[in-house]
Amino acid sequence: MIPRLALVPGEPAGIGPELCVRLAQAPRSDCTLAVFADPAALRAAADALALPLRVLAPGASVERPGDIVVHPIANDAPVTFGQADPRNARAVIEALHTAAQHCLDGTFDGLVTGPVHKATINAGGIPYSGTTELLAQQAGCDVVMMLANATVRVALATTHLPLRDVAHAITQESLERTLRILHRAMRRDFGLQHPRIAVLGLNPHAGEGGHLGREEIETIAPVVDALRDEGMALTGPLPADTAFLPAKLRDVDAVLAMYHDQGLPVLKFSGFEDAVNLTLGLPYPRVAVDHGTALDLAGRGIADPSSLFAAVDTCARLSRMRVTA
Amino acid sequence: MIPRLALVPGEPAGIGPELCVRLAQAPRSDCTLAVFADPAALRAAADALALPLRVLAPGASVERPGDIVVHPIANDAPVTFGQADPRNARAVIEALHTAAQHCLDGTFDGLVTGPVHKATINAGGIPYSGTTELLAQQAGCDVVMMLANATVRVALATTHLPLRDVAHAITQESLERTLRILHRAMRRDFGLQHPRIAVLGLNPHAGEGGHLGREEIETIAPVVDALRDEGMALTGPLPADTAFLPAKLRDVDAVLAMYHDQGLPVLKFSGFEDAVNLTLGLPYPRVAVDHGTALDLAGRGIADPSSLFAAVDTCARLSRMRVTA
Repeated sequence: MIPRLALVPGEPAGIGPELCVRLAQAPRSDCTLAVFADPAALRAAADALALPLRVLAPGASVERPGDIVVHPIANDAPVTFGQADPRNARAVIEALHTAAQHCLDGTFDGLVTGPVHKATINAGGIPYSGTTELLAQQAGCDVVMMLANATVRVALATTHLPLRDVAHAITQESLERTLRILHRAMRRDFGLQHPRIAVLGLNPHAGEGGHLGREEIETIAPVVDALRDEGMALTGPLPADTAFLPAKLRDVDAVLAMYHDQGLPVLKFSGFEDAVNLTLGLPYPRVAVDHGTALDLAGRGIADPSSLFAAVDTCARLSRMRVTA
Repeated sequence: MIPRLALVPGEPAGIGPELCVRLAQAPRSDCTLAVFADPAALRAAADALALPLRVLAPGASVERPGDIVVHPIANDAPVTFGQADPRNARAVIEALHTAAQHCLDGTFDGLVTGPVHKATINAGGIPYSGTTELLAQQAGCDVVMMLANATVRVALATTHLPLRDVAHAITQESLERTLRILHRAMRRDFGLQHPRIAVLGLNPHAGEGGHLGREEIETIAPVVDALRDEGMALTGPLPADTAFLPAKLRDVDAVLAMYHDQGLPVLKFSGFEDAVNLTLGLPYPRVAVDHGTALDLAGRGIADPSSLFAAVDTCARLSRMRVTA
């Protein structure tokens, strides 16, 4: 069965619409795609890039390059590329909620999302801390954020927290929950029967036996040991600076970093263009681009579509894994 | 003038002695080398590796492969490779102090150090937190730790601190001191008239305008702005996850990371074998290997000497820069 993917371009004044237009130029056989957005913004992007675009109604079949299936979500204000308008915050959030609801209802199999401009959403009067958080709340479940490219998969024990709050935020309970979600997703979505997960320490040198912090001894090691006793293939807590050595990554399916800047610099250095952002733990696979709205590039046809293409590839693969399970 | 380098192998039961023996197999023309160690440990390493070694007295000239100039520092206990003995802690520390004193006195131009086994030194009754700290204390000056390979140079605003203490440890004063030391070293030791330094933020996304922490606004940006007004080519505070993108590194001579695991995973991923550890701010250049004592490999001839070779290369280059300045 071919997975049906819902695609939300995100901020209409950013590069999201034009990336969707570029995606439509090469019809895919591994999935169907439906875009949740205002057709006018997509048409404006196609015009700006001088690319063909034929907007089809939900349920229609793509026949030729440029065909795009759109579930219309009307914007409240006209779109000027490069200038995010808080009046369109409602439409951006409604598109996310609607597409996600279709995934929860089972009328779609996976969700791909483009970049959202956080400040503009909040300026529009809608409290928003991130699409991952929005989807988790809508689905009512705990999730784990994972970034992945061809070199490495990095999951995060904490995400967008000030550094001074990180140590307090990691408890045995939160860490166990994170590892169970990660382990389950690696099995179910990636088809790895015995996923090998490297768990990093919190402190430099993973605490160096307690000399550089005690969280490894008091929090991380007990959880890792207990889950390893259950049969999970975990290693750690490991020093972050050597855990990413290429020779070590060869024996690992995912790395669990304790916080954002411990894990993501290596991931982005090792391959930014094809990096994607996955939300693990939702009832459906969700994959996002690993870049921002790039307002300064929007409408100029120079934005690199690699991350959106990689996000669709990944979401199609993960969705097929569930559809055929 | 050819720089005179002092070389301390470090822990005698580790791979330090055999790396020195391998170094002696290819006499260098860009520097002279003198090893501060017990000749017996060097001879034992040469025997274990079946390599020629002729120990020469201080001041003698190297004539052929295997010649090595040694300033003898006697061990207190016989050396068994793989088994670090706390009774030799005194000799390890004395070798470091003696070699460094020669550099302070001007009888040597630069210092290269091998790996020291921290726990063994402390077990020997000598308080020791690291060679960098030891050398800074002996010289009575503030220093900055920098790791470097062919891809990137990463300096650290804080080094071996528990993560929960990092945010408190960074003040405007400490950051300004660190940047001045780094800037001066890039000019004097690396010959860069206008070194371009990328300063990372402390928090994810460099605080995202205050939403993810205020240290960028209250501590880092004011220092960066003030020093930029003085003429330094600084950028930042920058988000750590994108600052290391290869395209961005091309325009940067050094990255200042706020803490250990923010900067070093990328550095080691991008090239571990040839990575070296520099101490900036001392009256002499000091370069160390970027690996540990590797007790499990010692005496077997399989340890990779690349980092020691790179450390000698780097120290010779930096010392020549000062000698000819």
